[in-house]
Amino acid sequence: MPVVAVDIGGTQYRLAVVSREGEMLLHQRARTNREAGAKWLLPRLRAELRELLAKGEHSPQAIGIGFGGPVDFASQTILASLHAPGWEEVDLCGELEREFALPCVIDNDANMGGLGEYTYGAGRGFGSILYYTVSTGVGGGVIIGGELFRGSHSQAGELGHIPISLDGPACTCGFRGCVEALCSGLAIARQAREAVEKGKTSSSLRTILEEKGGLTAKDVFDCTASGDALAQGILAKVKNAFARGLIGAINCFDPQAVVVGGGVGLAPGFLDGLEEQVNGSLVIPGRRKIPILRGSLGDNSVLLGAAALAFRTIDTY
Amino acid sequence: MPVVAVDIGGTQYRLAVVSREGEMLLHQRARTNREAGAKWLLPRLRAELRELLAKGEHSPQAIGIGFGGPVDFASQTILASLHAPGWEEVDLCGELEREFALPCVIDNDANMGGLGEYTYGAGRGFGSILYYTVSTGVGGGVIIGGELFRGSHSQAGELGHIPISLDGPACTCGFRGCVEALCSGLAIARQAREAVEKGKTSSSLRTILEEKGGLTAKDVFDCTASGDALAQGILAKVKNAFARGLIGAINCFDPQAVVVGGGVGLAPGFLDGLEEQVNGSLVIPGRRKIPILRGSLGDNSVLLGAAALAFRTIDTY
Repeated sequence: MPVVAVDIGGTQYRLAVVSREGEMLLHQRARTNREAGAKWLLPRLRAELRELLAKGEHSPQAIGIGFGGPVDFASQTILASLHAPGWEEVDLCGELEREFALPCVIDNDANMGGLGEYTYGAGRGFGSILYYTVSTGVGGGVIIGGELFRGSHSQAGELGHIPISLDGPACTCGFRGCVEALCSGLAIARQAREAVEKGKTSSSLRTILEEKGGLTAKDVFDCTASGDALAQGILAKVKNAFARGLIGAINCFDPQAVVVGGGVGLAPGFLDGLEEQVNGSLVIPGRRKIPILRGSLGDNSVLLGAAALAFRTIDTY
Repeated sequence: MPVVAVDIGGTQYRLAVVSREGEMLLHQRARTNREAGAKWLLPRLRAELRELLAKGEHSPQAIGIGFGGPVDFASQTILASLHAPGWEEVDLCGELEREFALPCVIDNDANMGGLGEYTYGAGRGFGSILYYTVSTGVGGGVIIGGELFRGSHSQAGELGHIPISLDGPACTCGFRGCVEALCSGLAIARQAREAVEKGKTSSSLRTILEEKGGLTAKDVFDCTASGDALAQGILAKVKNAFARGLIGAINCFDPQAVVVGGGVGLAPGFLDGLEEQVNGSLVIPGRRKIPILRGSLGDNSVLLGAAALAFRTIDTY
């Protein structure tokens, strides 16, 4: 019997019916309306779930949700809605349980991405993994002994918020110099713009900035691939910073493997050389080799993780 | 029925008979001979254990050892002997088990310090703690759900080896900019010497350096207490670096409390203000308050942790 998986992100939300083997039997996606937030999305989500369940042929047994913001897992409540307003006041799981008479479970999207890669993706076969999603921000999910590790207040595994620079730039978390502040897509774009603005070297990044009025992390990867020295230098700095975050996290958790996903994490070249560099810099190097793997689920990791969590919920009923 | 606890450190080794309540019924300490290493210490340790057990009135049920270096817990073997040569080749637990016909268990001293504070000290009553020992180096022990968290290769919880500075000084672990490289006793002494050597300000640290030919972390704390501005500046920098390490570790583990021990960690002023600073800088500040506590066992934490581990070993027999 399959489950329904929901992925509520900052720019889109997605629904799928997923089999126990991780096959997506039905799949829908739609853009969210960032400003309208929960009030706008909740009725649409309910309508689409109604439609999905009315199709009937699959009879899902539970609903799993990956949410783009912090979730208190113990109370199954959204703690803060970073991308869109109004979610803190909504008992999302409770409402869906009442309407559809199915068990519903929610967790943050980085945890779900980690559980997805652990269950169906690159993390399969390992007992414990660290999962990074490097994209607009940097999220983390930690699996220990086959279980998501959530800590004492559902706030463990914030691998993007390990400070790695004493005087680093301000981070979205309110602190400074975190992995996210140096390695996220936004941070890469910011560093590129700063480098062009203060640099004298010619660079195709300058041309792009002048033509488009802005730069993205993708521009940096594209220019790196075509041999632009400034872009290569920025990417090298970013990768060096990310390696430090990895070293700190591995020295904390001593996992069996690391899996990296997200738009930046999966961009060409981002992981090249990282496994060797990181393993050579751990405490007592040479005694273990921690593989650093590309996520294999692409942008389905959260959806499949939410499905995996829904299956776990059924199984413990 | 009590157990025997052994603490093998870089400069001294200690033995005690400890009750289940953490009372030290008998206690001996002696200096080690650093150069001679295992060959020198092992026969002495055996002789003292023989003597201790011959006293007879306590009938210990197990032996627990806290060792000053990395231990592979699964195989109960010493991985590397950082302070003294020869321990890698010794099956310490096996030898003591054979001679004394008692179950014997070994782990590294930072883990044992953490288990000691968790069981008998400042960490009592919490379900999960991070333990730091800030002394010559910076060690860590992580307790999750009442159990020591050792990771996949007995190398988890290396809280002293989270890199917090992009261009920091070389660390004993081989990497750069770790918490240990900036906050250990040796690091504090090094920073004091560098500050005096390149500084022009007068400072009592300069006087001490000229008189004694060297500086220690204790000198920095003493001079800070007597109002020396240079010493105060060094300590402020060290505390700021330590706060960053704490923030990273708490964002990883989300514990119920942090306990700090060790000669530097327990020095006057080291923890002042840290709890407030760290809690104000966590992801989603204000949602939780993590107490940052002084260890309450002083230099008995390793010995009492080794005793606690020995009791756990008996209990699972």
